Amino acid sequence: MPITLAHLGPAGTYAEMAALAFGNTLSLKHPETFDLHPYPSIAQSLQALDRGEVNYAIVPVENSLEGSVNMTLDTLWQLKHIQITQALVLPISHAFVTQASDLTKVQKVYSHPQALGQCQPWLQEFLPQASQIPTNSTSAALAYPATDPTTAAITSMRAAQLHNLPILAHDIQAYPHTGDAPINCTRFWVMKPRESDGWPQAGDSHTSLAFSLPKNRPGALVQALLIFAERNINLSRIESRPSKRSLGDYLFFLDLEVGENVEIIHTALEELQTRTEVLHVWGSYSLAMV
Amino acid sequence: MPITLAHLGPAGTYAEMAALAFGNTLSLKHPETFDLHPYPSIAQSLQALDRGEVNYAIVPVENSLEGSVNMTLDTLWQLKHIQITQALVLPISHAFVTQASDLTKVQKVYSHPQALGQCQPWLQEFLPQASQIPTNSTSAALAYPATDPTTAAITSMRAAQLHNLPILAHDIQAYPHTGDAPINCTRFWVMKPRESDGWPQAGDSHTSLAFSLPKNRPGALVQALLIFAERNINLSRIESRPSKRSLGDYLFFLDLEVGENVEIIHTALEELQTRTEVLHVWGSYSLAMV
Repeated sequence: MPITLAHLGPAGTYAEMAALAFGNTLSLKHPETFDLHPYPSIAQSLQALDRGEVNYAIVPVENSLEGSVNMTLDTLWQLKHIQITQALVLPISHAFVTQASDLTKVQKVYSHPQALGQCQPWLQEFLPQASQIPTNSTSAALAYPATDPTTAAITSMRAAQLHNLPILAHDIQAYPHTGDAPINCTRFWVMKPRESDGWPQAGDSHTSLAFSLPKNRPGALVQALLIFAERNINLSRIESRPSKRSLGDYLFFLDLEVGENVEIIHTALEELQTRTEVLHVWGSYSLAMV
Repeated sequence: MPITLAHLGPAGTYAEMAALAFGNTLSLKHPETFDLHPYPSIAQSLQALDRGEVNYAIVPVENSLEGSVNMTLDTLWQLKHIQITQALVLPISHAFVTQASDLTKVQKVYSHPQALGQCQPWLQEFLPQASQIPTNSTSAALAYPATDPTTAAITSMRAAQLHNLPILAHDIQAYPHTGDAPINCTRFWVMKPRESDGWPQAGDSHTSLAFSLPKNRPGALVQALLIFAERNINLSRIESRPSKRSLGDYLFFLDLEVGENVEIIHTALEELQTRTEVLHVWGSYSLAMV
């Protein structure tokens, strides 16, 4: 039976590239082959795993330029049967895909909102006249330049090649090309069916969790963060998302750095349970560069 | 000379409704009339104010269901010549606009990504077959159902009426209709040209600021938050955004509650200046419900 990997489709998305990279590491360890299962949204790929329809889901969490992927965080808060087993960091290199003979002929640029956001300096410099139109995924944007030479898409090089469409410019997220150009990479989580409490064991480098706080208790967030500060546990990330109950009521998503002594994290998590309303530990894992 | 108000257009967006509400309060105080200046993006409306081309810009900051408006926060960090003068909270009620005779005939639903996000439970229940396609604004989505009866848009009631298009369902963000249905409202900031340091004065209810932290100093965020906790200053919001320098390097956006004694906030801001790398105080202001 091949191992099944859910991801945001269609073929050529960065989520598919991350899933391929993870599948290849599986194939090295085991003789099984793997099958990619594309879904039209990130939420649907996570829900398929939660229902036990696939073995893994590979989802983007955060981009270095555009920040958190809200759909991933909001969907995770709803699900109970999955946990993180691995983090992957994928470098992102965007291609500008069009059948136009030159840039001045392009009137509309299609891509995922995160990719459009990442390429703003290049678009403002070279295509100030073009309107920017968001699509569900970078790959889905290719439907437009495939049929209309006044349009363009911003996608992965791989997606452009899969569709056999011309690339007029590449690495357009790294403009201007100065020494301190921002680094564009996206962190993905590989999720699997839940089989433990997700607390760290020796060898894990990070623990990810989320919590809500008791209502109307000023300073509750700082009290929760102090639990980690007092133990010199570093937070590599903190993100707030609305609880969807009322304006000003939040969920907090934290990534902790796990050191040699995992017991320190365990005692911190025990104390955190007493200070939060709902606490989810999404899992403990190590980080791989793709 | 009429007072000029920049906002995300075209006519019928929630940003235009907030700008109209603010313009009406101006008209009560002064005999001047006001002119609305729609821009194709939130960034462009803020940049127009920063260049001194308009008197005010009214921009969405945060929705109770979908969270922060990243384009507003990321653009603000780049601008130097503007400050907040007022916050407005606008209730959001979405209409489902289509010329289809019934819901089963709708194949595509267009709207701003925030509005699509806010209506997910309703869309999943009544239109599981339809694809969801993001647009630049809720009003811009109306171009599709205006010409194609297999499509629909999610917009304000006002926008549907301006375009004389039929509303097949309303208040679709409040589904399911249970007693604890989530409250949908959006907070806007009214921005003006900068004329002070933005620190609070008597009568202000909130101060909003953002900062970056010195690099590679574990616990630096908790140390900064302790400045407020030690003085019993409540944070009504904390949001992180990527610094765009590297993955894991953030800017933090905070809203503070200002009490009777504004001096307490002043001493906290003085200490915060010594613990942050860059500190912007966006302004101090009061909050109005629209």
